[in-house]
Amino acid sequence: EKPQTMAKGLKTQYVKDPIKFMGLEDLIPMSLNTKRMQLREILDRDVAPLLPEFIEKAQFPREVLGKIKGLFGLSEAKYGCRQVTPREKSIILYELARVDTSLATFYALTMSLVIYTIEALGSEEQKAKYLPGLCNLDLIGCWGLTEPDFGSDASGLQTTATPVDGGFILNGSKRWIGNAIISDIMVIWAKNTKTNKIEGFVIPSKTPGIHVKNIDRKLGLRMVQNGVITLIDVKVPITTRLEKATNFANGVKVVLEHSRVSIAWIATGMLSGVYEASVKHLRERIQFGVPIGAFQLNQEKLVRVLGHFHSCFLLAWRITELQEQGKATSGQAGLVKAITSLIGRDAVRLGREMLGGDGILIDNYVMKALADMEIVYTYEGTYDINALVAGEAITGISAFKSSYSLRKK
Amino acid sequence: EKPQTMAKGLKTQYVKDPIKFMGLEDLIPMSLNTKRMQLREILDRDVAPLLPEFIEKAQFPREVLGKIKGLFGLSEAKYGCRQVTPREKSIILYELARVDTSLATFYALTMSLVIYTIEALGSEEQKAKYLPGLCNLDLIGCWGLTEPDFGSDASGLQTTATPVDGGFILNGSKRWIGNAIISDIMVIWAKNTKTNKIEGFVIPSKTPGIHVKNIDRKLGLRMVQNGVITLIDVKVPITTRLEKATNFANGVKVVLEHSRVSIAWIATGMLSGVYEASVKHLRERIQFGVPIGAFQLNQEKLVRVLGHFHSCFLLAWRITELQEQGKATSGQAGLVKAITSLIGRDAVRLGREMLGGDGILIDNYVMKALADMEIVYTYEGTYDINALVAGEAITGISAFKSSYSLRKK
Amino acid sequence: EKPQTMAKGLKTQYVKDPIKFMGLEDLIPMSLNTKRMQLREILDRDVAPLLPEFIEKAQFPREVLGKIKGLFGLSEAKYGCRQVTPREKSIILYELARVDTSLATFYALTMSLVIYTIEALGSEEQKAKYLPGLCNLDLIGCWGLTEPDFGSDASGLQTTATPVDGGFILNGSKRWIGNAIISDIMVIWAKNTKTNKIEGFVIPSKTPGIHVKNIDRKLGLRMVQNGVITLIDVKVPITTRLEKATNFANGVKVVLEHSRVSIAWIATGMLSGVYEASVKHLRERIQFGVPIGAFQLNQEKLVRVLGHFHSCFLLAWRITELQEQGKATSGQAGLVKAITSLIGRDAVRLGREMLGGDGILIDNYVMKALADMEIVYTYEGTYDINALVAGEAITGISAFKSSYSLRKK
Amino acid sequence: EKPQTMAKGLKTQYVKDPIKFMGLEDLIPMSLNTKRMQLREILDRDVAPLLPEFIEKAQFPREVLGKIKGLFGLSEAKYGCRQVTPREKSIILYELARVDTSLATFYALTMSLVIYTIEALGSEEQKAKYLPGLCNLDLIGCWGLTEPDFGSDASGLQTTATPVDGGFILNGSKRWIGNAIISDIMVIWAKNTKTNKIEGFVIPSKTPGIHVKNIDRKLGLRMVQNGVITLIDVKVPITTRLEKATNFANGVKVVLEHSRVSIAWIATGMLSGVYEASVKHLRERIQFGVPIGAFQLNQEKLVRVLGHFHSCFLLAWRITELQEQGKATSGQAGLVKAITSLIGRDAVRLGREMLGGDGILIDNYVMKALADMEIVYTYEGTYDINALVAGEAITGISAFKSSYSLRKK
Ligand SMILES: Cc1cc2nc3c(=O)[nH]c(=O)nc-3n(C[C@H](O)[C@H](O)[C@H](O)COP(=O)(O)OP(=O)(O)OC[C@H]3O[C@@H](n4cnc5c(N)ncnc54)[C@H](O)[C@@H]3O)c2cc1C
Ligand SMILES: Cc1cc2nc3c(=O)[nH]c(=O)nc-3n(C[C@H](O)[C@H](O)[C@H](O)COP(=O)(O)OP(=O)(O)OC[C@H]3O[C@@H](n4cnc5c(N)ncnc54)[C@H](O)[C@@H]3O)c2cc1C
Ligand SMILES: Cc1cc2nc3c(=O)[nH]c(=O)nc-3n(C[C@H](O)[C@H](O)[C@H](O)COP(=O)(O)OP(=O)(O)OC[C@H]3O[C@@H](n4cnc5c(N)ncnc54)[C@H](O)[C@@H]3O)c2cc1C
Ligand SMILES: Cc1cc2nc3c(=O)[nH]c(=O)nc-3n(C[C@H](O)[C@H](O)[C@H](O)COP(=O)(O)OP(=O)(O)OC[C@H]3O[C@@H](n4cnc5c(N)ncnc54)[C@H](O)[C@@H]3O)c2cc1C
Repeated sequence: EKPQTMAKGLKTQYVKDPIKFMGLEDLIPMSLNTKRMQLREILDRDVAPLLPEFIEKAQFPREVLGKIKGLFGLSEAKYGCRQVTPREKSIILYELARVDTSLATFYALTMSLVIYTIEALGSEEQKAKYLPGLCNLDLIGCWGLTEPDFGSDASGLQTTATPVDGGFILNGSKRWIGNAIISDIMVIWAKNTKTNKIEGFVIPSKTPGIHVKNIDRKLGLRMVQNGVITLIDVKVPITTRLEKATNFANGVKVVLEHSRVSIAWIATGMLSGVYEASVKHLRERIQFGVPIGAFQLNQEKLVRVLGHFHSCFLLAWRITELQEQGKATSGQAGLVKAITSLIGRDAVRLGREMLGGDGILIDNYVMKALADMEIVYTYEGTYDINALVAGEAITGISAFKSSYSLRKK
Repeated sequence: EKPQTMAKGLKTQYVKDPIKFMGLEDLIPMSLNTKRMQLREILDRDVAPLLPEFIEKAQFPREVLGKIKGLFGLSEAKYGCRQVTPREKSIILYELARVDTSLATFYALTMSLVIYTIEALGSEEQKAKYLPGLCNLDLIGCWGLTEPDFGSDASGLQTTATPVDGGFILNGSKRWIGNAIISDIMVIWAKNTKTNKIEGFVIPSKTPGIHVKNIDRKLGLRMVQNGVITLIDVKVPITTRLEKATNFANGVKVVLEHSRVSIAWIATGMLSGVYEASVKHLRERIQFGVPIGAFQLNQEKLVRVLGHFHSCFLLAWRITELQEQGKATSGQAGLVKAITSLIGRDAVRLGREMLGGDGILIDNYVMKALADMEIVYTYEGTYDINALVAGEAITGISAFKSSYSLRKK
Repeated sequence: EKPQTMAKGLKTQYVKDPIKFMGLEDLIPMSLNTKRMQLREILDRDVAPLLPEFIEKAQFPREVLGKIKGLFGLSEAKYGCRQVTPREKSIILYELARVDTSLATFYALTMSLVIYTIEALGSEEQKAKYLPGLCNLDLIGCWGLTEPDFGSDASGLQTTATPVDGGFILNGSKRWIGNAIISDIMVIWAKNTKTNKIEGFVIPSKTPGIHVKNIDRKLGLRMVQNGVITLIDVKVPITTRLEKATNFANGVKVVLEHSRVSIAWIATGMLSGVYEASVKHLRERIQFGVPIGAFQLNQEKLVRVLGHFHSCFLLAWRITELQEQGKATSGQAGLVKAITSLIGRDAVRLGREMLGGDGILIDNYVMKALADMEIVYTYEGTYDINALVAGEAITGISAFKSSYSLRKK
Repeated sequence: EKPQTMAKGLKTQYVKDPIKFMGLEDLIPMSLNTKRMQLREILDRDVAPLLPEFIEKAQFPREVLGKIKGLFGLSEAKYGCRQVTPREKSIILYELARVDTSLATFYALTMSLVIYTIEALGSEEQKAKYLPGLCNLDLIGCWGLTEPDFGSDASGLQTTATPVDGGFILNGSKRWIGNAIISDIMVIWAKNTKTNKIEGFVIPSKTPGIHVKNIDRKLGLRMVQNGVITLIDVKVPITTRLEKATNFANGVKVVLEHSRVSIAWIATGMLSGVYEASVKHLRERIQFGVPIGAFQLNQEKLVRVLGHFHSCFLLAWRITELQEQGKATSGQAGLVKAITSLIGRDAVRLGREMLGGDGILIDNYVMKALADMEIVYTYEGTYDINALVAGEAITGISAFKSSYSLRKK
């Protein structure tokens, strides 16, 4: 299709990159910002153009992993892995999501769920064994918490770990697990039948008794391969247990509090992508003889996208600063995850509509962002669950449970 | 995956079908209502289960056409075709969309664009030649108005029809045309280079000089095949001209005013589908020991979906009554198309989130409805364009144009 | 302040009255429609201009009662009172609210709470004694259900009716009671200490032991006088008891189900007022050299107001039809009350902003509508409570209660 | 009315002050934060309780001025006035608005419009003459830009300043001018009939030819006295001219860019007030046997309020930092003013509804915040105008004008 020519007399000055409008770049340490721009160049040039076909076909883009290899690491340099600070991780997620949510999700999953779990809760032996491979992508991990019957209510999970001589027998089923089918190792959360506590295990995906089935026909996050894992009498040695994850609060909760911040950065990066696609379209697309950015209805929408972008960025930035200071809490992570996905969802919708018909093609970013944002809204605890997490923190009242079943008894 | 058992003690009485809650069925003539329920049975049993795979693969479900063959017809019984009144057409669209938006779009496209154009604007000869085939699906038609550079501004289209001896030469390009690649005949709108009026032509898709390319990687309405049609020196006889479409107002506008009502019914049918999927899920899915419908946050969302459903249904019904009386106007059609897609969009979003992770699978209706609703919002004139159509009707002031280009001159 | 002159060249044709845009008038029986227009004339000419000063001063406009005297009546002509059908009552509420919400509330309170309670639940003696006076406004009534500590949870009310020789002793406190301070008679709901059922009483406001204090500084519905009623050892004869109100379900609930429909009509009438004020302003107010209706941002807002108006009207109309057929249910009334106040609230906000600075003056309708709509949203059960009423009806699951207190025990 | 007792077993720990939830206090320099808490104490104790009566009566609370006298100053200490940095001004506005919007508006009007105009654009003589009195509230100023026919289109204003011997003759009319009737001096913007530029004048309110009439019956910002100023042949000496305000861009625009940031802080402070009133109510108000904060619907609303609060605070903080660095632009101010008032409006609505019936009384903060927010949304440029200001900055395309009038010529 022939490209439209730029409208005559259009000012060349405009805000292409939303991070520049209010100098948000200045919040990012200079050297990190330089790295950011290098990463952006690679993603724009070598990665982005390849993705639409994988998305259409719902395939994992193994081919592009090489391009993002250097981005992984630990909270401190060790085991031959480099250090990635909360700030750096945030910025990487931002840049990845600006290009594609599945890609950013792969990074978050690997860094904030799998690697972080092992680094924060694992034994020295586990760390030495798995972290190097995970950091250079020789190993792919997955993280199994939710089950067919326990999603929002993850802490009620039913997978069991029965202590036996020299180890445990795992039985149960996990659902929605990202990377499951392509994973080399799995983090599996299960209820210790003896202590009744929820504990974690890192185990090779090939362990006998483990069966994985892919979940097909997702209409968002199409490149991420989510699967159902069935564990039937899976015998694992005692060394697979995550030793610091002695219960839900010391285990799963610690990780989620950490990784929910990553999701906020994904939402923020997506809004950057949406803004950029929109402002470009508003300037280049001509209807009724003018660039469509000249129509008030479009212009007001773009401003709202930019405003929402700023809210997301600043919220995510604030909690990252608190993380750097070791002060971030679960309630804060809940608020930030909830709000960024809430207003993020509003923003992608606006971007989608500004592109008109063009806005429904995978290639033009906004529609895939709209579809992917539904999952950002839902995973790592839905909007509602995260709102209730924050709500409990601020009111002192827990509102997760219903009186319904109680009344029935 | 093992099914959850129904929560114990759950009341068996609930509102499964939203049309029954406030007796909206009573607005539908009894015999039509009976037909409706027969159609529903066929769709639920024979059609719905087949679709997810076609949607995943973005293929046209030619296999199911047989099931919906009897639904087509004309505004009066003639040329061997049965009569389909505005009311009946509405109800059919409602039932089709309740199952799938692509399917309903195929019906609307065929009935309200192709067949209606020929019936309302064509010559006797054209009617006799094409209507029977279109009505029994021996012929598939497409309807080409918008162009790469003229979408919202369709009346500015640039495809030309140059009068020559015995006919016309068509040149230009059409974009987004549904069915293009599978069509037997095409309605093509073009500017007569002599009169400068926009006129219509019905031509065989195989006419030399016509080239069709499919538009790939749509993330909504995936079963509908939209294409770009390029017309290079396409010679067509004078008999292909739609004789009553003497200009934009007598041609395109007449058809759009008519077909926008169909889109409102599609949105309404979709909300029925969304409500049904949601209420079912709220009763069957158990989290925290209760059916998730026991959570206030979910229950309030379901009520909003039901409220929006009623608004859509009643708005669409009202304009259909006006159509039956021959009183419907372009401004009304603009309002109804705009508002049903606006609140429809809000409703699908709610349905989507109530299903949590399950709500992202093609098979569970809500996510495909969410994606498809983006197109319902955009095609046949975007929300904004239809709002401005209604806006002009109610204020007496046209606000489509911008002062931008004018100031530049 | 000097009036602006009408923009030159402005089309004289536009939609001034939203009820005409889609022929909604045709739904109203002809003779009722004629009455409606007569009422409108009186209200516009003799009532509307007097109100702003009463609103500013938060005073009851006793002076205007004479103008609306003829509007009251019973569901059937009896006791010297005329008949007012559900349809007629709806239309009267619509016209009153179009001018002012306090006025319409006074009508709803009198007709749908006080008169309806007595007519539906009272003894022959009570009817004969009070209905004629209430219908011709010789008597002003109030209706006391909610209490300082029991608002949404009205069925938990604590006012007691202790059976004593020849009657009852009432003790307790009622809050928010409209008309309390100007009332001649009161309907009081109280818990029979013997049966533990909630029963109703009609008593003279002057009965010893009754104390009324006005609630000051309301920022909405300023003309309605709401009060706190304190009942200290109020002795009332047995004949004051409403004989058919044997418990909550047969008493309060019957009335609320009925009167919530009235609130939906108030919301609808308000949107008519908002639309009219807005369209007028958009045509008359000139900025940047044009009527501000020429700006897309304004025009789209007006269209949304009109769309919401139609949704409200049609929803309210539908349930009124069901009332006429004796088929309306509590769940339907909950849905209609909830949704009309929800979208009504959105619409008044839009009207308010279209008037810019002018839109904050009491005299220009939209700001008082915005403030009043907050109360429409809240009284007769808040939005949330009505949504949960509808929610229970459609899911079969009650979600009013919280598990909180239960867990504490 | 008797107070409810605190629900038994309610955790004492909760987030009372939203600024503490994510450590936003840490962004404020320590000494400034200490001052802030002192101011808060005074306002809560000595000011807040007095206001409801003034608001009800729509009177200016001259009595409380003494309490806030020390808060005024200049951008640098001079003329005997203390320095107030952008950060300090922001924090003062925040604390004032947390208590009352009219109060905060009085401060913004005095500091960011009147004092700032004179300090930034006036002559040494004007500064020495007026600033000391304005800073210690011996003089009250007003700032007159908008006119009956020029609100959003302020740059088109029609008040004229005709150069005459030794000065100017001012003629015209100003509308909505805050403080007009109580002012000692006025800043008046007028078009120099010779240069056709918009220039400013500082003149005593008692100058012959000046007439002021109050605008009555505002339903928001009731304590602020807005007036219409009529200037009939008002002769002023040349020394009244603001010498640096040589045209709109060097005058009005400079001031608005500065003062719009103040409005963002007002919105932010209001959200603090709304959050505090809401969380208190959710914990103390009991319905259905539990604190109403235990209901999911309420809790989710409170979380949204808190999220919006954070977005507003961080946006306002970011632009204040840019102001401190002298880098803030008009486009940024437009975005921040627009977005904070947009989401602020959403938040007050939520606070309002959480208080149920109590939420309509002036005394309970939320309803007056809801009413006042309408004006925050509208003054200093409506939301739409500020969005278009930002929109032009980011797209490079101006969309203020309509093609309507142009087409008519
Ligand atoms: C694409 C994708 C990738 C994922 N990746 C992983 C992964 O790698 N590893 C992993 O362990 N999990 C993963 N998940 C699971 C994810 O965390 C859950 O889907 C999510 O927590 C929601 O659970 P659910 O889907 O079971 O929804 P449900 O819990 O069934 O929720 C349905 C609806 O009910 C609402 N609801 C539920 N409980 C309450 C309540 N108490 N109060 C109010 N409302 C309530 C929810 O908000 C939602 O709207 C993934 C999910 C998706 C969709
Ligand atoms: C799936 C699909 C199927 C379709 N099927 C057909 C078909 O079968 N036959 C056919 O002829 N066409 C078809 N269309 C085309 C459809 O009608 C157009 O996509 C639609 O009218 C919008 O045009 P556009 O995509 O060019 O968007 P644009 O016109 O480029 O609009 C882009 C954005 O600018 C806004 N905008 C444009 N002009 C104005 C204005 N004056 N004021 C304010 N905002 C404005 C729009 O609202 C939109 O948000 C189809 C489109 C889709 C996506
Ligand atoms: C102007 C006005 C006039 C009135 N006139 C009358 C009258 O004439 N006669 C009369 O009897 N009454 C009258 N009322 C009372 C009115 O019916 C109540 O105000 C209303 O039902 C709400 O109760 P509340 O104010 O106690 O709010 P609350 O019950 O305290 O509610 C506070 C908030 O909590 C929410 N909430 C409460 N319970 C739940 C729950 N279970 N789940 C989720 N959310 C919940 C509410 O939705 C609300 O947002 C009037 C009220 C007003 C404001
Ligand atoms: C309480 C209050 C205090 C005030 N104090 C002062 C003061 O002290 N000094 C002072 O000088 N002024 C003051 N103002 C004036 C204020 O700045 C104006 O009210 C405001 O700029 C809006 O102008 P308007 O009221 O004339 O609305 P209008 O300009 O008439 O706007 C009406 C509607 O049209 C929209 N609109 C207008 N133009 C366009 C356009 N080009 N495109 C799209 N939409 C458009 C607006 O957004 C609005 O929705 C005050 C106003 C109020 C209400």
